[in-house]
Amino acid sequence: MPYRYEIRLAGSGGQGLILAGVILAEAAGIYDGKHVCQTQSYGPAARGGASKAEVVISDEEIDYPQAMRPDVLLAMNQKSLDIYLHDLKPEGLLIVDGTLVQEVPVTGAVAIPFTQIARQELGREVVANIVALGALAALTKAVSLKSLEAAVLGRVPPHTRELNQKALQAGVDAARRLMRKAKKQLIPGE
Amino acid sequence: MPYRYEIRLAGSGGQGLILAGVILAEAAGIYDGKHVCQTQSYGPAARGGASKAEVVISDEEIDYPQAMRPDVLLAMNQKSLDIYLHDLKPEGLLIVDGTLVQEVPVTGAVAIPFTQIARQELGREVVANIVALGALAALTKAVSLKSLEAAVLGRVPPHTRELNQKALQAGVDAARRLMRKAKKQLIPGE
Repeated sequence: MPYRYEIRLAGSGGQGLILAGVILAEAAGIYDGKHVCQTQSYGPAARGGASKAEVVISDEEIDYPQAMRPDVLLAMNQKSLDIYLHDLKPEGLLIVDGTLVQEVPVTGAVAIPFTQIARQELGREVVANIVALGALAALTKAVSLKSLEAAVLGRVPPHTRELNQKALQAGVDAARRLMRKAKKQLIPGE
Repeated sequence: MPYRYEIRLAGSGGQGLILAGVILAEAAGIYDGKHVCQTQSYGPAARGGASKAEVVISDEEIDYPQAMRPDVLLAMNQKSLDIYLHDLKPEGLLIVDGTLVQEVPVTGAVAIPFTQIARQELGREVVANIVALGALAALTKAVSLKSLEAAVLGRVPPHTRELNQKALQAGVDAARRLMRKAKKQLIPGE
């Protein structure tokens, strides 16, 4: 991970991305001991189906708290992908919710059906944000899975802890399956 | 309210100030239609009993998202007051939780026993943050009470809505009682 690592979580207002941003920031800041700034902005640009939360992680003091060129963009719906893709670093990682994003105008994006996993494997669409966090952590290693789990459990209502733990693991598993598949495609026969 | 209005909410990790910051930001940004940036930072300085959430509200686009010289500091415990007081604007408003803050090194601070109100009037200490938000809104008019209530109801778990609504009102009432008292002291005989 470079000196300064910028993550943008984007989607519609109801997809729980601010909570996801707070959890990710607490995983990195409180449990992994990094310097972290977590931000959300509201304004005319933020309205109309695309909200975002940002997390900047660094080993040193953070000068500017918002993402300038994100290293990672998680886009949980089409609108947020369309609005925020242009900022992503050329070598950055794009992760989309394959359930709700139909059109990905770049190659190299990772699509995982977070909402479908949440609905089918966990019975609650509302935990798609936590499924996505698990996948993001497994793909980027921006935070340790142990810290992320601790942060999730510290933030969600007590009676939903088990559900959220399973959601996190489902996201990690989905990302790992995808990485194994990608590896096989790169090295056929292995 | 001036062009750029900075609010810092500070206290210990368990006092729910990040949630309070998100609610305040959504009241101003989503419901009042202002430009808002909401930030939390984690790092060595943030550890040890003093966490903070910041909300910057403006009528125009916000250039720098963090508070530089807060117009308002809400200090929910002694440690956070001691750490963050020096940044407050000279003409800024200091609001402290009179239950947990014993020592206020400046004059002109507003002390309201948020934790005691939450415990005694509402039976749940955990809503002290919402009581404080109600008082902050009544004292500063940084957000409308209607917007603040909508934002609270949009963020808290459904089964706690009534409790949080009462907590908000208790904070508004406490602030209004205080303002009436202050007025009487300024104009004796009235």
